[in-house]
Amino acid sequence: MSLLSLPHRRFLQDLFPKTDCLLTPEEMVVFEADASRLEGTPLAVVRPETEEQIIELMRWAHKERIPLYPRARATNVVGLCVPQKPGIVVSTLKMNSILEVDSDDFIARVQPGVITGDLQKRVEQEKLFYPPDPASLGISTIGGNVATCAGGMRALKYGVTREWVLGCKAVLPGGKTITCGGRNHKNVVGLDLLRLLTGSEGTLAFMTEITLKLIPKPESTASILAGFANLEEALHAIKVMFKAGMLPAALEFMGPEVLTALQDAGAVPWPSTVTASLLLRFDGSHQGLEADLEKAGAIFKACNVLWSTTGIGKEEEEPLWDVRRSINPASFKVAPDKYSDDVTVPRGKLLEAVTGIRQIANKHSLTILTFGHVGDGNIHVNIMHDASDHDELARAKRAKKEISNFILSLRGTLSGEHGVGLVKAPYVHLQLSETERSLMKQIKHIFDPHSIMNPGKAF
Amino acid sequence: MSLLSLPHRRFLQDLFPKTDCLLTPEEMVVFEADASRLEGTPLAVVRPETEEQIIELMRWAHKERIPLYPRARATNVVGLCVPQKPGIVVSTLKMNSILEVDSDDFIARVQPGVITGDLQKRVEQEKLFYPPDPASLGISTIGGNVATCAGGMRALKYGVTREWVLGCKAVLPGGKTITCGGRNHKNVVGLDLLRLLTGSEGTLAFMTEITLKLIPKPESTASILAGFANLEEALHAIKVMFKAGMLPAALEFMGPEVLTALQDAGAVPWPSTVTASLLLRFDGSHQGLEADLEKAGAIFKACNVLWSTTGIGKEEEEPLWDVRRSINPASFKVAPDKYSDDVTVPRGKLLEAVTGIRQIANKHSLTILTFGHVGDGNIHVNIMHDASDHDELARAKRAKKEISNFILSLRGTLSGEHGVGLVKAPYVHLQLSETERSLMKQIKHIFDPHSIMNPGKAF
Ligand SMILES: Cc1cc2nc3c(=O)[nH]c(=O)nc-3n(C[C@H](O)[C@H](O)[C@H](O)COP(=O)(O)OP(=O)(O)OC[C@H]3O[C@@H](n4cnc5c(N)ncnc54)[C@H](O)[C@@H]3O)c2cc1C
Ligand SMILES: Cc1cc2nc3c(=O)[nH]c(=O)nc-3n(C[C@H](O)[C@H](O)[C@H](O)COP(=O)(O)OP(=O)(O)OC[C@H]3O[C@@H](n4cnc5c(N)ncnc54)[C@H](O)[C@@H]3O)c2cc1C
Repeated sequence: MSLLSLPHRRFLQDLFPKTDCLLTPEEMVVFEADASRLEGTPLAVVRPETEEQIIELMRWAHKERIPLYPRARATNVVGLCVPQKPGIVVSTLKMNSILEVDSDDFIARVQPGVITGDLQKRVEQEKLFYPPDPASLGISTIGGNVATCAGGMRALKYGVTREWVLGCKAVLPGGKTITCGGRNHKNVVGLDLLRLLTGSEGTLAFMTEITLKLIPKPESTASILAGFANLEEALHAIKVMFKAGMLPAALEFMGPEVLTALQDAGAVPWPSTVTASLLLRFDGSHQGLEADLEKAGAIFKACNVLWSTTGIGKEEEEPLWDVRRSINPASFKVAPDKYSDDVTVPRGKLLEAVTGIRQIANKHSLTILTFGHVGDGNIHVNIMHDASDHDELARAKRAKKEISNFILSLRGTLSGEHGVGLVKAPYVHLQLSETERSLMKQIKHIFDPHSIMNPGKAF
Repeated sequence: MSLLSLPHRRFLQDLFPKTDCLLTPEEMVVFEADASRLEGTPLAVVRPETEEQIIELMRWAHKERIPLYPRARATNVVGLCVPQKPGIVVSTLKMNSILEVDSDDFIARVQPGVITGDLQKRVEQEKLFYPPDPASLGISTIGGNVATCAGGMRALKYGVTREWVLGCKAVLPGGKTITCGGRNHKNVVGLDLLRLLTGSEGTLAFMTEITLKLIPKPESTASILAGFANLEEALHAIKVMFKAGMLPAALEFMGPEVLTALQDAGAVPWPSTVTASLLLRFDGSHQGLEADLEKAGAIFKACNVLWSTTGIGKEEEEPLWDVRRSINPASFKVAPDKYSDDVTVPRGKLLEAVTGIRQIANKHSLTILTFGHVGDGNIHVNIMHDASDHDELARAKRAKKEISNFILSLRGTLSGEHGVGLVKAPYVHLQLSETERSLMKQIKHIFDPHSIMNPGKAF
């Protein structure tokens, strides 16, 4: 039985016909959790198809003080889609049209529910390129990516989602609409509301349309997978490469524990002396890529690489990237459960961060896998444990907390790309001052005076 | 005689010893105008050296309701540094230290008054690269660039200033300080106050320290200067080049009127059949650049290029760029005065925009030069006229207004990079809705409840 009053139910059922308004627990169950595995039961789930419906809904919810939880594909890992108080989940599943791809203006205009990977395929057909590539691109949406300012592997060369948003339309609590930016590649008129919405985790407004910047699709790509005796040597090789003026599109590292896990799963091509690995991708013209591979090869050789292999073009590169993709399955051979975190440190602090995390792992007799994006100091931390073992679970929790504090002590950030949500909200005060948070809360209050938009999240 | 009360004068003289506090008209005269040529007389000019002084000043001005006008090198062309009401000009001239260049973290930390070109030279010594390159880089500052979100030629490949700001420290009216972001290349904790300050034209807070992102300096650069029979063919060539996956760092065009002006000044190397010209710069590895030049050359040939020349490396490229640099001197042979504007249209609307501007020129019997950044639809418009001829001046003014309206009708923006300031403030309502401006004003009110920061500007 729904907790909604009869008039409220009627309102929703009138606005969202048939299966676009879900009210029973059975129908709503799949809308309770997100990839954080936290859960909360909504009062109702609605699936708007038009901006008009969202305007009506926002007008009503504002008046009635009913929380709304924008939800796309719920792949966020920090509880951003979880109703923390009784409220209505607003799904963008049905707003998933690519409205326009314009190869003269170099823009794409989309509804928020478009899957990122679908858009990428579509624009690539026209030799255009949308660089942001969160690992979840096949299952997450442009709306979710903008609301979280999603990162990805190519952030090193191309930046994060923020850098590719040119405009959006959004509905404010109360039902007014705004248009931020547009289809101009440069625009500096007024305060930057567009980038204020970007990364705001659905707490300010509901985005109904997004315009993205595109660039020409690079002719080709090439990758190198390389093994070093230790992480220090691997990072030194990168430093030499940067000094030589090379900027890969992606630059991943895998630490010793990852390599052991891969080895145990039988998934490594290199000799056992290798305890740290780098995986690089360049993009550009064919001739430029050949030169890049040659130059990088020479640098790695001079930096004591123990093993390496290269591939030019997608088909040749895939096997190299399969090694990285096998981290997740291999990790579950280490232990059945994991806490994942995406901490980020200043780029030069990577070795210190990985070393410190290893010490925390040892102290708590845990295996912690570290890998991630070297180029921007973004480290994926997998704290492996067996959750059915109470003591181990407790140690894993302690380790997680200690890692957060340690990262902040290196002047790192609590989140490089996954966001705050419910999961990190309790720690935000460690990073942001009272004055900063107060400004954020006051800005939120301007957009959303009754705090109906995704309450309890972010800051 | 100063209009400041005695206690106010005393306060300022105590806080800013000797020549750091200017009170006489003679001393202040150079602080009255900016590159817009608008003027306003300040009550006083102060030159802080420390954050503490700024904190004291902001506390006092907030309490006493005295406007403050942050001023760097005053190269902005929209009146951003001009005191519109009686108030105090706060110069960053003495806060001009490069605090740190860290080639491990790939960041530079600077005081706001550092000249952009000085920073670039410094980081390039360490094989690092700070891409934003407003044409004013030799005379404008990082603080000014961040406050206006300055663009530049390399925006096509590297984006604008916004994309390179990682953190800042700022003092709020009332004297509280905030730290936004930091030295992490990725960071998504809280609302994005950093990008809200970026482009806010000094209306929210006083920035005292800025952290910028750096990347490896590309090995080399190469340029092509090419002439086509008309702009349509030139733009078609660019389209083919983009389809081939090429992304130059800079991509400039010069329209027919510019070429005539250059010809009359004896500054063109091409045959007279050329009425539109492109100037491109690529950056990357030596081998990649050779391939780029070859490929671009073949494309241009297939697209009926009439004339072209190339250069690899700074020394060879300079003569090509000298042609563009001679636009400004050549323009003054057309007429003694000009109105400049930096309108931006969606990239595909460039030809339509230039054609329409030409019609407006014909209608008013004026010469209007158009040139600029093809890649991002950013057109520099020079309305040439003789200001001593009243009728011509009136026609130039009418043309300026008509061009603004025309650009907006193409879904362009009033400003791509120069900002709003005083000059464009009267037109902002044509581009931003009442709701959008109201949000901006409310946000301003949170930061600056008594409106002491650069009042009358921006929105
Ligand atoms: C396997 C896996 C890999 C991942 N890899 C990465 C990675 O590499 N980089 C990275 O950054 N993240 C990654 N993530 C996290 C996640 O994919 C991103 O946070 C993603 O941006 C979320 O998109 P979504 O469509 O699933 O949005 P959801 O999770 O549904 O929602 C995310 C947020 O967006 C808000 N929102 C959605 N639509 C709107 C709208 N129209 N208006 C207003 N607010 C809206 C929601 O309220 C919520 O706050 C990964 C997750 C998984 C499970
Ligand atoms: C020849 C020439 C070429 C130009 N080319 C370009 C170009 O290619 N691209 C482009 O974008 N612009 C260009 N400009 C415009 C101008 O150079 C830019 O707007 C530049 O960013 C201004 O920098 P500045 O240091 O002179 O700042 P100022 O003009 O002194 O100030 C600009 C704004 O910044 C604010 N400000 C400065 N410091 C602070 C601080 N510490 N805290 C808060 N606010 C602050 C001021 O209040 C003001 O609102 C050009 C100008 C000229 C004269």
